[in-house]
Amino acid sequence: MATAPSVSYSITVRLEVPASGTAVSQLTAAVESSGGSVTGLDVTASGHERLRIDVTVAASSTEHADQIVSKLRGIEGVVIGKVSDRTFLMHLGGKIEMQSKHPIRNRDDLSMIYTPGVARVCMAIAANPEDARRLTIKRNSVAVVTDGSAVLGLGNIGPKAALPVMEGKAALFKRFAGIDAWPLCLDTQDTDEIVTIVKAIAPGFAGINLEDISAPRCFEIEARLREALDIPVFHDDQHGTAIVVLAALTNALRCVGKEIGSLRVVMSGAGAAGTAILKLLLAAGLKHAVVADIHGVVHAERDDLKDAAPASPLRWVAENTNPEGVTGTLKEAVVGADVFIGVSAPDVLNGSDIAKMADKAIVFALANPDPEVDPGEARETAAVVATGRSDFPNQINNVLVFPGVFRGLLDAQSRTVNTEMMLAAARALASVVGDGELNPNYIVPSVFNDKVAGAVADAVREAAKAQGPSVSGAATGTAVAL
Amino acid sequence: MATAPSVSYSITVRLEVPASGTAVSQLTAAVESSGGSVTGLDVTASGHERLRIDVTVAASSTEHADQIVSKLRGIEGVVIGKVSDRTFLMHLGGKIEMQSKHPIRNRDDLSMIYTPGVARVCMAIAANPEDARRLTIKRNSVAVVTDGSAVLGLGNIGPKAALPVMEGKAALFKRFAGIDAWPLCLDTQDTDEIVTIVKAIAPGFAGINLEDISAPRCFEIEARLREALDIPVFHDDQHGTAIVVLAALTNALRCVGKEIGSLRVVMSGAGAAGTAILKLLLAAGLKHAVVADIHGVVHAERDDLKDAAPASPLRWVAENTNPEGVTGTLKEAVVGADVFIGVSAPDVLNGSDIAKMADKAIVFALANPDPEVDPGEARETAAVVATGRSDFPNQINNVLVFPGVFRGLLDAQSRTVNTEMMLAAARALASVVGDGELNPNYIVPSVFNDKVAGAVADAVREAAKAQGPSVSGAATGTAVAL
Repeated sequence: MATAPSVSYSITVRLEVPASGTAVSQLTAAVESSGGSVTGLDVTASGHERLRIDVTVAASSTEHADQIVSKLRGIEGVVIGKVSDRTFLMHLGGKIEMQSKHPIRNRDDLSMIYTPGVARVCMAIAANPEDARRLTIKRNSVAVVTDGSAVLGLGNIGPKAALPVMEGKAALFKRFAGIDAWPLCLDTQDTDEIVTIVKAIAPGFAGINLEDISAPRCFEIEARLREALDIPVFHDDQHGTAIVVLAALTNALRCVGKEIGSLRVVMSGAGAAGTAILKLLLAAGLKHAVVADIHGVVHAERDDLKDAAPASPLRWVAENTNPEGVTGTLKEAVVGADVFIGVSAPDVLNGSDIAKMADKAIVFALANPDPEVDPGEARETAAVVATGRSDFPNQINNVLVFPGVFRGLLDAQSRTVNTEMMLAAARALASVVGDGELNPNYIVPSVFNDKVAGAVADAVREAAKAQGPSVSGAATGTAVAL
Repeated sequence: MATAPSVSYSITVRLEVPASGTAVSQLTAAVESSGGSVTGLDVTASGHERLRIDVTVAASSTEHADQIVSKLRGIEGVVIGKVSDRTFLMHLGGKIEMQSKHPIRNRDDLSMIYTPGVARVCMAIAANPEDARRLTIKRNSVAVVTDGSAVLGLGNIGPKAALPVMEGKAALFKRFAGIDAWPLCLDTQDTDEIVTIVKAIAPGFAGINLEDISAPRCFEIEARLREALDIPVFHDDQHGTAIVVLAALTNALRCVGKEIGSLRVVMSGAGAAGTAILKLLLAAGLKHAVVADIHGVVHAERDDLKDAAPASPLRWVAENTNPEGVTGTLKEAVVGADVFIGVSAPDVLNGSDIAKMADKAIVFALANPDPEVDPGEARETAAVVATGRSDFPNQINNVLVFPGVFRGLLDAQSRTVNTEMMLAAARALASVVGDGELNPNYIVPSVFNDKVAGAVADAVREAAKAQGPSVSGAATGTAVAL
């Protein structure tokens, strides 16, 4: 699918042209004739003879940006100077920083923020460790932890190369939920070591956001950390995605007038996201689900499952789906299905496969950047289509969920995150789309809809508090002299 | 030693008094008669009958603050309201936060800071990991790592209670050197685990500041991390203190006109700080040092040393000090000494011990809050006296050193920190005190002297670069398209 010009491939070209003549007027034409678009044109210096101009251009790829530059170079009288990549410029020196909340102007400030005054605060916490949630950054801090093993769609690129994503995640936590997150990119992919490390760094944080850790290690790491820690541990790639999908499905069903309990859902992909989506949909009342992976439909009799470990995720899928014991290929399975959910690979289905689904079919093709089926083709017969892409309607985007979920967990001083809280988050996200707004091209709100994070946070906080002090500590915490 | 009223024990008392009469005029008198001092008196509400007044008072201890409040309560017509502790108020919710450097206003911002644009930056770093120092927070980030085993003078209070100190440290890094530091308070005191953890979190940081880890574990942890990591590892309790002491001694010698090579130095304390001070002074040219601990003067024949492990820190002290084989007590050892340096316990010496030192004696009594000898008594015969306290001249304060040291290391992209760099830092700190300013009561500059951090940083950066690319990466790092 040809992608449109985007600022994520935006460059600024500094060039000089003769003050007289047609060179200036040719610049925009040259960019647009090569498929780019001019988003800014600033004369940064002017003389009698020549002009210096910064032309900012949106391209659709790095190669495309290079083509545009050579097209500009071809204009008579144009001299190309520095070419800047706006995305790289934004990353110079990193995207986040640490700030002190109080000025340190003099000896008095120093004696309260640091020694000797700080010693009394330390002793208060030593006497009552729960006060760390009131007197330190723990109250509002989340660790964004990755081992760089499954970063975006880029694969196992390691901890240093994962850092820009984790910095972006931290920036989103602050922007959408006022949370102080700090990235920890771990130079190990050993499950036991990762568990040991995250357990050890937990005292300074009120929540752990696991990010871009490959399956199946991510399942064991999350399960062991939830068992060990008294703060919530949330693997966003699993549960963030699952919550948005459930919210989107809820609203898609409002559009087509079907009930989740009577749906036939076919899923492609049984990785981290797929397994989490399946579990949350089952918890929400789904009864008929069929999952296919690269070997076809998952069923208990499949050769690769006969000798799979009892605890293997794929065996869990086989035992909790496909009650009719369907076998065969994905293409066979989708025939007559109400819902297709893809979290797998590009182009595993085409328009005619979608045409064979049930009436008022719902298609979530979430593989990025290239979906399981062309959304344009799918839309010809399906009633509702959603993707992970920002250039189509109904983008399934975790940014809709993780800030609000953690805001709610932190405000409740929750010691865990569980299915009830995730179901509440999905209901709240779905409800942000009012009956008056709801339609097949608007089943999830925009990430910049300022109602989203608050609605999700309120729902999660109340769900946590409803489970009492063993889960939510918000009521507890003894007073210190203030 | 009675401590003076201090803002680190500052309270604000909200009270109501009759609008007429003498109650108002009695408030200040009541505070001062009980040994406190009024630092603020604000009428926050006024009526015909009564005034509401916030009185801010500096006390010398928590108990003292309570006495002052009851003294105020005793004034006729006064009704005491809320009593606030300014130091605790400053700590509510923590002292530091995370900030995004760029606004996230719209889809375009999102597509550059996060997906899809960020993917190109990730791939650039995957192709050339050194670029993490240019395109991520690694360039300016330091991890402040503790296990809470030796926090200030408070002992083994654990990771949560240590957090306010580490937050304060992070705030000082920013205030004095523009460094982004984040605290990691570890829920383990196992040496192997701490080494594993710090190695694993290193990719996102350009330096590791170890803090308040007890001896002897701190020696092994630092040594193993320096061996394993390609970023500098600096245990501030050891080396920060050692650098300030060497700078202070350098200027004290300028005052008394002695040379380090001919000095007889007696030290009390062979812990983390003591050992580091000793090593740095020896590197700076000291030849005659004698160290005493709780069992008296350290010498190779001492019973507890005969069967000490070859690698034990105390054996190292025995083998590298006391060439004359002095034995006996600390009090015996200081007779005739040029310099006494205490990093041990309160009141191990008195004024008459100091009187028996050599002419123009130098006394650094650094135990906090109560020094090894009363600085007032010491000053009667010693030429120069320094302590760790902020209410006497010549405070030996690590804040003079760690911000500038790390600024220099980060700017040089140094892969290590070594003795040459620490000697350079000490020389630079000493040189901030000009010949015109130097006197026995001013051998170290104020922590708020804005020349300090820059002078230390410049010296450390140049010392690192002088050791070439194997130590300093500042010259390396390939270009990416910008």
